[in-house]
Amino acid sequence: MKAAFYEGNEQIRIGECVPIAPAAGEVQIRVSHCGICGTDLHLFHGAMDHRVTKPAIIGHEMSGVIESVGANVAGWAAGDRVTVRPLDSCGECPACKNGHSHICQKLKFIGIDRPGAMQKLWTVPAHTLHRLPETLSLKEGALIEPIAVACHDVRLGEVKEGEFVVVLGGGPIGTLIALVAQHKGARVLVSELNPFRIQMLRDFDVEVVNPGETDIVALVEKQTGGAGADVVFEVSSSKAGAEMMTKLPRVRGRIVVVAIFSQPPQVDLFKFFWREISLRGARVYEAQDFEEAITLAAAGVLPLDKLITNVCPLDELEWGIRQLEKGGEVMKVLIECS
Amino acid sequence: MKAAFYEGNEQIRIGECVPIAPAAGEVQIRVSHCGICGTDLHLFHGAMDHRVTKPAIIGHEMSGVIESVGANVAGWAAGDRVTVRPLDSCGECPACKNGHSHICQKLKFIGIDRPGAMQKLWTVPAHTLHRLPETLSLKEGALIEPIAVACHDVRLGEVKEGEFVVVLGGGPIGTLIALVAQHKGARVLVSELNPFRIQMLRDFDVEVVNPGETDIVALVEKQTGGAGADVVFEVSSSKAGAEMMTKLPRVRGRIVVVAIFSQPPQVDLFKFFWREISLRGARVYEAQDFEEAITLAAAGVLPLDKLITNVCPLDELEWGIRQLEKGGEVMKVLIECS
Repeated sequence: MKAAFYEGNEQIRIGECVPIAPAAGEVQIRVSHCGICGTDLHLFHGAMDHRVTKPAIIGHEMSGVIESVGANVAGWAAGDRVTVRPLDSCGECPACKNGHSHICQKLKFIGIDRPGAMQKLWTVPAHTLHRLPETLSLKEGALIEPIAVACHDVRLGEVKEGEFVVVLGGGPIGTLIALVAQHKGARVLVSELNPFRIQMLRDFDVEVVNPGETDIVALVEKQTGGAGADVVFEVSSSKAGAEMMTKLPRVRGRIVVVAIFSQPPQVDLFKFFWREISLRGARVYEAQDFEEAITLAAAGVLPLDKLITNVCPLDELEWGIRQLEKGGEVMKVLIECS
Repeated sequence: MKAAFYEGNEQIRIGECVPIAPAAGEVQIRVSHCGICGTDLHLFHGAMDHRVTKPAIIGHEMSGVIESVGANVAGWAAGDRVTVRPLDSCGECPACKNGHSHICQKLKFIGIDRPGAMQKLWTVPAHTLHRLPETLSLKEGALIEPIAVACHDVRLGEVKEGEFVVVLGGGPIGTLIALVAQHKGARVLVSELNPFRIQMLRDFDVEVVNPGETDIVALVEKQTGGAGADVVFEVSSSKAGAEMMTKLPRVRGRIVVVAIFSQPPQVDLFKFFWREISLRGARVYEAQDFEEAITLAAAGVLPLDKLITNVCPLDELEWGIRQLEKGGEVMKVLIECS
């Protein structure tokens, strides 16, 4: 069967791979769709070469149908429609023992540290499974993982109805954060440069401004009666975003850092002191975030069909990666794996 | 009567000033002692020239006895022993209306934006007063303001009994944070370079290390069984502190930024993502922090007498400032004002 292998040095090879039969506690899934994630771009660019074993099958934003079930797996059967929460925790480190197994100190992320979903038949531990309702298509089911990221971020940001939220960066995750926060009753403003994404956000009735054209600090001040934003999500991974994020919050406002900063940017710590601002980092998701994402997706409150701009065969994976990295006219790109 | 005037350009002049009679809602205090604060050093170095009206009477860490009372002041009488919470809020801005008047968006800090305490007779609004118990000397009463800073910082850090706390910077505020956190049952480690301060902290039974001699990251990891610190207080205002603060917290640990960073340092935002660390800025205090500080001081649980290394007349103020700025063999320097 076919799989997508990362070979190092920005090389993707589509080649043959042998299905792995599910061992005890595992299931084998016939993968339907798999999205390309920002993490896959980082991996493609070599930033995770210390973690991957090359050639590495990538991919973790997926949907599929259980093909077969290993021994000692209760509650799951062939034919079940599922998505995977691709985290494997040790259960023994201080973080796991403290109830934070999603940031296990020895966390194995399936799709980075272990083979990923961009293959026809994928074998994973059964504890990673979440059931997809019949009302949700497998295509849209591949978006559960990024929606769960957004649910986690919004939950850690403690976004409440009526609050003013700014999202710096309107890519797939920023857009989902905006949509989830708006669904919770927040007033949302997104800052984004890419005209294609700006138009898509407007089509979703999300207020969006181009920070190259609009003074966002003045706009937020005006729209909040001089108070400032309740919550700011930094999703841009940019120096400009790291600078902007401290200028927007109200007194005791919150910043959630979702973006992955490979280099430490300058951060105006004075602003944290001056307005008693708080900041927290948010990483992946917990089981409850997956359940919330499935509920939201199945309820049809998110424009998932429009977010998926492209569905490509496996051998167009590199094209999809290149489109995403250059900010092309794409939002969510899915790969058909079966 | 004599007062200490900041004249700009690192100049202090001790000169004559005329007492101001208390207007309605005000009291006039015969100032007993006034401490030299880090803020006074910032002011001396010109960092607050945009706020002060020169010549400016500085000082705000004080104790004294009410000399006279203006009209419409209830609950206070001549002879009452008091300290002042030197904040004057507008009551109308979004922060005040949101219950955060201590960070009023138009806050007037008495001793910066308005004349301070380094004079014999100081007139202030009656709403700033806190009563000093008879069991607390006026000398020690001058420490209530910095103790209230520490109480505020420890409260915002949500320090709980049994937690592991690191304090980066063992000056007067860092030392008080360490003492207050230790009194709450936390295990405390202070990082400090100055040998005089290191010895004083050891005399107080606080564990302290010199970061130039000890690998603090390894030490904290060892002492916490590989978990990391529950709470880190950054009180050093240094690039090294801004770098160290993100290396120490456990998964979902907290950082409290107490220091005033005049320049934005590089901050490793990746660490916030990776361990879901949170950070919050802490500024001044609220009324409850003053009350807690008075309770702690009156209970005798803090070694205040040893923290006060020097009690000087008004005309030795500049000597005290110079000692503090060069890291001399001083901790808390008080000025006798009456």
